[in-house]
Formats: sequence, C-alpha cells, structure tokens
Amino acid sequence: MKVLVIGATGTVGSAVTEELGKRHQIVTVGGKGGQYQVDMADIAQVRRLFTEAGKSGKFDAVVVTAGVLHFAPLAEFTPEQYRIGLDSKLMGQVNVALVAQEHLNDGGSITLTSGIVSEQPIRGGSSASMVNSALEGFVRGAAIDLRRGLRINVVSPTVLEEALDTYGPFFIGFEPAKGSRVALAYSRSVDGPQTGQTFRVW
Amino acid sequence: MKVLVIGATGTVGSAVTEELGKRHQIVTVGGKGGQYQVDMADIAQVRRLFTEAGKSGKFDAVVVTAGVLHFAPLAEFTPEQYRIGLDSKLMGQVNVALVAQEHLNDGGSITLTSGIVSEQPIRGGSSASMVNSALEGFVRGAAIDLRRGLRINVVSPTVLEEALDTYGPFFIGFEPAKGSRVALAYSRSVDGPQTGQTFRVW
Repeated sequence: MKVLVIGATGTVGSAVTEELGKRHQIVTVGGKGGQYQVDMADIAQVRRLFTEAGKSGKFDAVVVTAGVLHFAPLAEFTPEQYRIGLDSKLMGQVNVALVAQEHLNDGGSITLTSGIVSEQPIRGGSSASMVNSALEGFVRGAAIDLRRGLRINVVSPTVLEEALDTYGPFFIGFEPAKGSRVALAYSRSVDGPQTGQTFRVW
Repeated sequence: MKVLVIGATGTVGSAVTEELGKRHQIVTVGGKGGQYQVDMADIAQVRRLFTEAGKSGKFDAVVVTAGVLHFAPLAEFTPEQYRIGLDSKLMGQVNVALVAQEHLNDGGSITLTSGIVSEQPIRGGSSASMVNSALEGFVRGAAIDLRRGLRINVVSPTVLEEALDTYGPFFIGFEPAKGSRVALAYSRSVDGPQTGQTFRVW
C-alpha cells in the first residue's frame, strides 16, 4: 500500500513510519520536516497536499499523528485557548478525513490519533479530554457515512516511553508504552478490516 | 436550591424545569423566551446573564439543555458546518461552565447535555457524535479541576417521545424516552453527589 503519514517526524509518527514502512510505501509529512509540509487546520493546504503527494499514484491509507493542545487549570482556561485544540488536533484531523474520503483509493483507510486523556483525565487537561473524546466520537459517526469501502479509526495511546522526559510529570502513575507498541495499533487500523473503532494502547 | 436552566423553553428544558421546580427555585433562560435570553456562544453574554440573574442571590446549580448542531452526509460536510456545533452546543456549554465556576455557590453543580449519538451514531451525524462526545470528555476533564466542591456532569438522552414528530425519522429503531424520564437524570446530577459523570437515558 501507499500510505501518507502526517506528523511523521514526531515521537508517535516516527514509530508509526518505521512499523508501517516494513510492508508499505510511506510518504512523510511534517510541520517542518518530512517530504511534504502542511498546516492541517487549513483545509486548502490539506487539499493541495493530497493533490501534490498523490501525483505519482493515489494513496491507500492516511495516518495522522499530529495536532496541538493547550493545557491549563479550568479556572484559567479561556474560550480562545480551547480553540487551539479544536482548530489543530480536532479540526486539523477532521480536515484530513474530509479530503481523504475524496482522494483515497477504494477500500482505503483513515487513521487518526486521540489519547488516553479522553477517558482518563489529568490536571489541566479539560481541553485534551474534550478534543480526544471529540475525535473518537467523530470516528464513530464518520465510519457509517463513508463510501467506497473506506474505513476510519482512531488510536488512543497512553504516554510514550520515548516522551517521558517531557510528559512524565503529567502522567505520574500512568503505565507508559513503547513507541513500537503504540505503532502496532496503527498497523491494525491500516492493515485490518475494522472501522469506527478506538484502538486503545493502555 | 436556586437553579438556572438555560434552554428552559425547549423540549428537554421544559421537562427539566417541571421536574426540578418540584423542589427548587428555577430561573429560566431561552434563546427568545424565558425570564432571560442568552447566546451561549458569546461568553460575554454568559457573564452578563450570571451577573444579572444572580443579583437577588447566587445560584446553586446551572443546567444547560441548549445548543445547535448541523447534520449532513460526511461527503458534503464542510469545516464551517462543523463549526456550527463546535461554537453552539460545545463551546456554548463550555462557556457556561467556565463562567459558572466563578459564580455558583460552594458545592454547586453544572449539568450539561450531550446525546445518544455520541455513542450510537446515526446517518449524517458525524458532527453530533463529535460534539456530544466532546462534551462528555470535557466533563471528565473539568470535574477534577473544579474547586470549592463544585461538580459537573452531562446527561446523554435518547430521542424524546415528545420530539418524535421532528426527529423520529432519524432515530428509527431507537427506543424513545418521555421527557419526564429524561428530566430525572438532571435531578440526579443537581441533587446527587456525583461528578465527572455521563448520565445516559437510554
């Protein structure tokens, strides 16, 4: 298969690229690095990406491991700060799904990324719980609307071992997972038959 | 208790007002009707509402049964159409929670409204699944950040018997619930001890 990985230069994305690269042809997309760059929050950029990167042949799968969230105590959160996660991690990934449904080959798949905080809250994480849950809901709703045998799933990883230096203090007592283990869930979505699922890695 | 019901003139809101009114002093808010009017999507209006309606005494609870969603097949959905539900049903209710945490009496409660489509998708409902799931995630995240003994829950109703004329065709095979039964879940949130919960009525 030909697979587009958006967020390929991040901690999760590089593990996913390595895992999927064992069987598939990967095209990498980053915010700055990778073969292509995109700001997912702008659907026009997402359309250009699929057109440009698909010139040598359409994709069978797209994986997104990108998106920004704001963290703050509820007492300090503003509507504008919620907008950061809604525009980036939520609508950025939704934009990819909207464009992908037109560009993927029949039977192709879309795999998005949420996170454990959707179900297991952490302090200051009301936006993360909101956005990650929104993605899981979107995938349930979108799956039954997709045509041409297209599928959509979302992976909900716990904190990655490789990211403990940065995120460890926010996830004390949470069992971390190796990137290579998290990447298996993306393989299950891309290579497997299921749709509308949240694949938890925790 | 003194309870602010936003959306009090709607199908769910009027049932909630009747049920809570058996024990509590209710102040009603509508888009057009009710004792006060508010556009929840504008947090400045929500702030004014709490200040004005709270002049004769602060509230112990706020219930929201308002919010608009767009429905369309995924193939026709635009980012702007997702924005309708994100601005109204999601951020409108989040705005109420953000303001309420400052204005409610100690030990007070916030009760929001999602819907069965968060978990049980319907055709054209990708925004509804997204927004309703987002609200349930937000409540999980916000509950652990609230101070002063404040609580927050969300009620997820199935389609109401009283609304079958309008929504029945979208919910064929779904078991409807009477408004009076749905209203019990709001009582459970307002009068009960729990927080961070999704109370399903289905």
